[in-house]
Amino acid sequence: MTTIENILLTGKNEGQTILSFLKKYNAEQRKIFVLCNPTTQKQCLPILEQLLQTKLSAQLIVLPIEESTKDINTCNQIWKTLLDFQADRKSVLLCLGGGVICDIGGFVAACFKRGIEHILFPTTLMAQIDAAIGGKTAINFCNEKNQIGLFAPATRTIILPEFLETLPRQELLSAFAEMLKHGLIADRNYWKQLINININNIEEITNKELILQSIKIKTTICAKDITEDNERKKLNFGHTIGHAIEAYLLQHNASRITHGHCVAIGMIAETFLSQQKRLLSSDKCNIIFQNLLSFFPIFDIRPNDYEKIVANLQFDKKRVGANYNFTLLSDIGVAEINQQVEREDIFKALVFCFETLKERKK
Amino acid sequence: MTTIENILLTGKNEGQTILSFLKKYNAEQRKIFVLCNPTTQKQCLPILEQLLQTKLSAQLIVLPIEESTKDINTCNQIWKTLLDFQADRKSVLLCLGGGVICDIGGFVAACFKRGIEHILFPTTLMAQIDAAIGGKTAINFCNEKNQIGLFAPATRTIILPEFLETLPRQELLSAFAEMLKHGLIADRNYWKQLINININNIEEITNKELILQSIKIKTTICAKDITEDNERKKLNFGHTIGHAIEAYLLQHNASRITHGHCVAIGMIAETFLSQQKRLLSSDKCNIIFQNLLSFFPIFDIRPNDYEKIVANLQFDKKRVGANYNFTLLSDIGVAEINQQVEREDIFKALVFCFETLKERKK
Repeated sequence: MTTIENILLTGKNEGQTILSFLKKYNAEQRKIFVLCNPTTQKQCLPILEQLLQTKLSAQLIVLPIEESTKDINTCNQIWKTLLDFQADRKSVLLCLGGGVICDIGGFVAACFKRGIEHILFPTTLMAQIDAAIGGKTAINFCNEKNQIGLFAPATRTIILPEFLETLPRQELLSAFAEMLKHGLIADRNYWKQLINININNIEEITNKELILQSIKIKTTICAKDITEDNERKKLNFGHTIGHAIEAYLLQHNASRITHGHCVAIGMIAETFLSQQKRLLSSDKCNIIFQNLLSFFPIFDIRPNDYEKIVANLQFDKKRVGANYNFTLLSDIGVAEINQQVEREDIFKALVFCFETLKERKK
Repeated sequence: MTTIENILLTGKNEGQTILSFLKKYNAEQRKIFVLCNPTTQKQCLPILEQLLQTKLSAQLIVLPIEESTKDINTCNQIWKTLLDFQADRKSVLLCLGGGVICDIGGFVAACFKRGIEHILFPTTLMAQIDAAIGGKTAINFCNEKNQIGLFAPATRTIILPEFLETLPRQELLSAFAEMLKHGLIADRNYWKQLINININNIEEITNKELILQSIKIKTTICAKDITEDNERKKLNFGHTIGHAIEAYLLQHNASRITHGHCVAIGMIAETFLSQQKRLLSSDKCNIIFQNLLSFFPIFDIRPNDYEKIVANLQFDKKRVGANYNFTLLSDIGVAEINQQVEREDIFKALVFCFETLKERKK
């Protein structure tokens, strides 16, 4: 179970804590493997080693892991490497990277010889406040996101704000959407703090206290329900439609719009659905619309393509039988799970986002 | 957790129990998928449907699943089929087959959309008393057995002795080795019962009470320790060397010697090691040797090949660091886990099996 205790939010000069448990693995003759891609090897490994004030005594597994290769073929390569280097059940896999590396690394570790330990070093803000928290692991399959995976919490998740200094603004902003979601579903005050920051100042987004608050919200929710039977579904707010839009964009090789941006539009659409179901007042909806739009503008989707977006919903893991199961809002800071939504209302929400709101802007 | 309660040992005219919970799935609009291979489709599905007195209302997934195809490619095919037929998180996978189908089916289900329910209908004696009990799932990888997998207990395991009527004697005998192991590691009286049966009479091996006793021994052990940290290691008796021999035979396309036969020779070798470590008296060892040999004769391995067998031990999941970790016996019915064995002693055990015992026979 991922609880706040397993998560180590550390900072400059705190490398000794990490070093001490890595040394413990060495003392127990447990082999340490580090999974990374060329980017995190180049940009993040030196930061980690500088913090530890020593070279990491571990076997590196460097593969070109990114969203498009987060698949079973890459798993095969990692498993093959683990076997080649005689990893055993006591071996440990450190995952040094963003959500993609944490997702696939956790899955690979959980399945290798029926499970070896894995430790996450999320290197992006998105991974630090979301992907690396809560024990979800997954790979993509047949062009569908995260179809194969497991609930397999990391032994530890180590948050090093140092990694964030190398990130492009676009990446930070993407994660910011998830932070806003945490506020919307669970903490009105956190939402208020977030909407008042100046996103042109990167340091305001990567503020340690704000990161910690997001982690706390997510771990509190996940600890109650690791396998997403009830409470955890709150985290799906914005993601049902957000994922469908993201999948559509991927399928059509559209201009690179971030996951967070898709989720933000998904949150707007699902806030609209909350209003349609009379869960949320139009005043509160407008506050949400206005603030989300100020950070995440509407992009272009042709009305002819709404059908394609809705078609992507059918692969959503949250679908049960014929209905579309949503998490909606009944207030800013209060999420309501298991809200059944009709297919036609989803179209209305897309019209609202990509036509009505767009018109309003003009 | 697999406990004895989840296991339904049923018999003729008890199909109604099974039918009732399958109907419950239907009533809840949960899709049912049945994983089988052409053999179990032909031989076992009709037996099940006869028992249920109705056609199974489910989507069949028939693939040529056998030991040589218990791999990630077959998983991909099953996952693809589940997606094609729009399986969702509430869908259920019934696995109708021997250990191979139960192993791969359990793994596939546990990883599909982070886990759907699976129900095992083990159709071989080996699967009924061993593979389908205790929640181990796995596939082979890079020609090594069960390297990728999970601890993922089935929702239910349903034991139908009817299936055993179609099995060749060779198969039953292979399972009999595991039943003998259950006696040796946990129940002296069970061992005594087993060594007194006439194995030429198939019905004596497939006696319902004997099957139940084996299931009880295995579930009791697994319930204490699902992830094989301590108690469950008892079940590895005979398997460390047994698996290495089996892998060697597979690599060399040797004549088809069953898993159980390899385990029986493995038990002889590991009983020898128990004696070497002065855990077990030579009298008791001789009783074990004599009885195991009466069911499972020694086959030929060239002394030059011992090295190859020992080389296979390095991939054993039970290896931790540089030592070889064995489960040995301190009495008939009493297993001792975490016994460290030197490499040279393993060679001595192989010499004992394939030379000394063979000579004695002459």
